[in-house]
Amino acid sequence: MTELRSKQKRIRIGPFSFKEFTKVVARFHGFPAPGVILGGIMVNAALKKMPSGILFNALSETTKCLPDSIQLLTPCTVGNGWLQVRNLGRFALALYDKETGQGIRLSLEPSRIEDFPEIKNWYYKLIPKEEADTKRLLASIHEGGSSLCRIQEIRILPEILLKVKRGKRIICPQCQEAYPDAGQAACPACQGESPYI
Amino acid sequence: MTELRSKQKRIRIGPFSFKEFTKVVARFHGFPAPGVILGGIMVNAALKKMPSGILFNALSETTKCLPDSIQLLTPCTVGNGWLQVRNLGRFALALYDKETGQGIRLSLEPSRIEDFPEIKNWYYKLIPKEEADTKRLLASIHEGGSSLCRIQEIRILPEILLKVKRGKRIICPQCQEAYPDAGQAACPACQGESPYI
Repeated sequence: MTELRSKQKRIRIGPFSFKEFTKVVARFHGFPAPGVILGGIMVNAALKKMPSGILFNALSETTKCLPDSIQLLTPCTVGNGWLQVRNLGRFALALYDKETGQGIRLSLEPSRIEDFPEIKNWYYKLIPKEEADTKRLLASIHEGGSSLCRIQEIRILPEILLKVKRGKRIICPQCQEAYPDAGQAACPACQGESPYI
Repeated sequence: MTELRSKQKRIRIGPFSFKEFTKVVARFHGFPAPGVILGGIMVNAALKKMPSGILFNALSETTKCLPDSIQLLTPCTVGNGWLQVRNLGRFALALYDKETGQGIRLSLEPSRIEDFPEIKNWYYKLIPKEEADTKRLLASIHEGGSSLCRIQEIRILPEILLKVKRGKRIICPQCQEAYPDAGQAACPACQGESPYI
């Protein structure tokens, strides 16, 4: 018990305790999602492995949960362009040097969640959400911590590092709104990509 | 002067004053980006037009700045899936009823920024960033407020409303990581979409 307590005290997720971070997640994400909290542990572990003093970007390999962990714990957001979200379906993220592309990738390691039935049930959706014991799931995530993950050194593809300069904004002859000129006759929305009826 | 002061007092961006919001933006986005602040005014105006008590999703028509305005002022984030980001290049956003798809779209209206040279210079990148007078630009955004925007009622395409159920997670025979089964022989990353060298 003493050991558990001292362990609980030790776990930090960025500047937060585990409990504080669940509150931060609830506020931003709408509820204390296990995926964002586990993601926070992963971001925290990645940050520790990154050399200090460099400017880094982030990449999430899933659209689910992880982007919010990154946005809450690093300077990288979707709106500032330092976070890229790719829908590859893997629960993994990378932080990498903006210049060299070298960095750290953290992924959830299937073999390591075998010992944590709550995590396994949640991750593989083996039981319906309603039947999951969230409290025990969060306790398992807390207990497992970064040992649930595989840590790799990676290098990002050069084409991802390239800053694409957008064309000057021009007015679309159809919708009369401004968009970055790419030599087309109209903006992407007016060329069939509009999300509206 | 008195009039200006009383006007300055009146402007609210969500629960924040204009000045408070610039600080919130600086903290989350890294700096008080004019686009996120203008976006905040747009989100605020959209929220006012939405019927109360409904569950809504959000869509940003640009990857730049606006996603952060939405994430800071609504329950919608990239990680919880209630915010969709499309790279259509238009400085516009929509909030819409999760069930019916009906909602409100706000876009920057080119004709209305003609009277605000700082905004025009910034938006059309007519002068280099370094030469821009950020203080005057923010004052112009404050002055223009939601009058800079066009407000439309919209209805989102039914296919965007559909919740796509992902397949159960299976282990990729190549990378040994879990991914949602879509009937392919390997995960998307191992099929050529990996962002790493």
